[in-house]
Amino acid sequence: MYKKDIKVIDCTVRDGGLMNKWKFSDDFVRGVYNACVDGGIDYMEIGYKSSEKAFSKAENGPWKFCEEKDVRRIVGENKTNTKISVMVDIGRVELENIPPKSKSVIDMIRVATYVHQIDKAIQMAEYCHDKGYEATINLMAVSKVNERDLDEALTDVAKSKVPIFYVVDSFGSMYCEQIELLAKKYLEMLKGKAIGIHAHNNMQLAFSNTITAAMHGCNMLDATLLGLGRGAGNCPIEILIAFLKNPKYRLLPLLQVIQDHIFPLQKTIDWGYHIPYLVTGAMNEHPKEAMAWMDSEKKNDFVGFLKHMHDNFAILE
Amino acid sequence: MYKKDIKVIDCTVRDGGLMNKWKFSDDFVRGVYNACVDGGIDYMEIGYKSSEKAFSKAENGPWKFCEEKDVRRIVGENKTNTKISVMVDIGRVELENIPPKSKSVIDMIRVATYVHQIDKAIQMAEYCHDKGYEATINLMAVSKVNERDLDEALTDVAKSKVPIFYVVDSFGSMYCEQIELLAKKYLEMLKGKAIGIHAHNNMQLAFSNTITAAMHGCNMLDATLLGLGRGAGNCPIEILIAFLKNPKYRLLPLLQVIQDHIFPLQKTIDWGYHIPYLVTGAMNEHPKEAMAWMDSEKKNDFVGFLKHMHDNFAILE
Repeated sequence: MYKKDIKVIDCTVRDGGLMNKWKFSDDFVRGVYNACVDGGIDYMEIGYKSSEKAFSKAENGPWKFCEEKDVRRIVGENKTNTKISVMVDIGRVELENIPPKSKSVIDMIRVATYVHQIDKAIQMAEYCHDKGYEATINLMAVSKVNERDLDEALTDVAKSKVPIFYVVDSFGSMYCEQIELLAKKYLEMLKGKAIGIHAHNNMQLAFSNTITAAMHGCNMLDATLLGLGRGAGNCPIEILIAFLKNPKYRLLPLLQVIQDHIFPLQKTIDWGYHIPYLVTGAMNEHPKEAMAWMDSEKKNDFVGFLKHMHDNFAILE
Repeated sequence: MYKKDIKVIDCTVRDGGLMNKWKFSDDFVRGVYNACVDGGIDYMEIGYKSSEKAFSKAENGPWKFCEEKDVRRIVGENKTNTKISVMVDIGRVELENIPPKSKSVIDMIRVATYVHQIDKAIQMAEYCHDKGYEATINLMAVSKVNERDLDEALTDVAKSKVPIFYVVDSFGSMYCEQIELLAKKYLEMLKGKAIGIHAHNNMQLAFSNTITAAMHGCNMLDATLLGLGRGAGNCPIEILIAFLKNPKYRLLPLLQVIQDHIFPLQKTIDWGYHIPYLVTGAMNEHPKEAMAWMDSEKKNDFVGFLKHMHDNFAILE
């Protein structure tokens, strides 16, 4: 499948940081950056921009805030073909956290939002756009959004200046048919905008759903090295690159950084497919219950977790 | 997706045995059997029938041979709704290894074959059918078979008495579009026969490809507990059952045996998604090179493995 408009966004540090409060060493972040550059990856999302009113600097590493000095310590002036992206969470960032583009090495700001915050997300994304950044809106937890609310949000986004909008499977609960439906709906209602896909791996469908989205016209593809990310993790970038076979990408630098930095991290961070994440994904629930379970001594009591979710949320016998 | 004709075949012991020469304890095999029965799984494939001329009993556990006394030690008279299946490999079994159905508690015999052996496979499967067993042909490595040879094989199978034929992604190299193409082709050319799917997880597509096949009319779905199987493993049965939501299945007994028997096995057997298996899958090569690498001290040298495959097989930069 050769599609020259496809862009791959590496979210290893940003999404992976959800597992260790963004306490990555500079050596680690630099390793990911160099691999993205050498591998021809289009964007590297290096972290979040967050308000210090929302999060403590004592408790979170630098990639939760992405101050200009920290980003430049890794990427310098970033005279490469890999653009730098950050994410902002509506309600956890202030407009004043966003400097003018002329003062920043960051290229793209992605605005993560729930559907009830979509007006604020449009305001924030247009603010970033007007400041000179590429801007996206990533509508989270769409698997819980009813059709009426989704259509209203899409109608508002369609009228905005925001050029990119994302299908986000926050709970890792969506199958190919749902991905196809949303990809087609977004493309139809947001004519002229690019559509992206961000998948989670609770049911081992992150890669599959990503290529399904690509086959149906989504051109911004999120992925992470070895799938590092919250809970079950993300679409593994090495599988995606091996699949795309696009001449701009190279697999070898990605395998090198996986070997040097990502794989060894599995000794201390337990992301990836695990039964508790499957259970929350299959139930279309937020993974937070599974993450708490995985952090407890009950971690490998899979039956106990199924019963816990059954008692507290819904029926899955 | 409620399809009442769907049958799930648990291949945990048969395919997983490729990782430990079928040296499972009776306690383990009985645990899998009880979970299949309690979980409503339609078939449990308990191992291979093999000729002692082809394999040594000193080197291989009982589930490489599935003698009647061994099978009965686990399943007794098997007065349950879960049928018992065994696999035979063309060239590694003799007709005399197959007793009449009246003397066996085994219900189904699946004949694994390469395309050049298809005549022998038809003879063997018809022999089993005539002896009173359910019989299938599982055409392995179809990703390496050219269209002319495949059409000839399918034409011969169409004329045979064999009622079930399988799409087998032996190398874990196939994407959803290829699965859809083969499912449609098999259904079209083998009218009146049931079609099955056996997937491998090298690119984390085993579950995805299995449900793609089901959506396109394949009704015999192979899977294993926690994906246990050769190399990258198989479609995880717990994900499949959580997806199917068919009232005949129950997830809880499957999670119980995963917790008690399968998950602990990960300490000693390293099946599942690993970079070397991704590389062979993406290159459409047999996983044997990756399995040898995973068994060596170079196991975690992913770049070394990519270079090794590049030098010896094909180009994947």
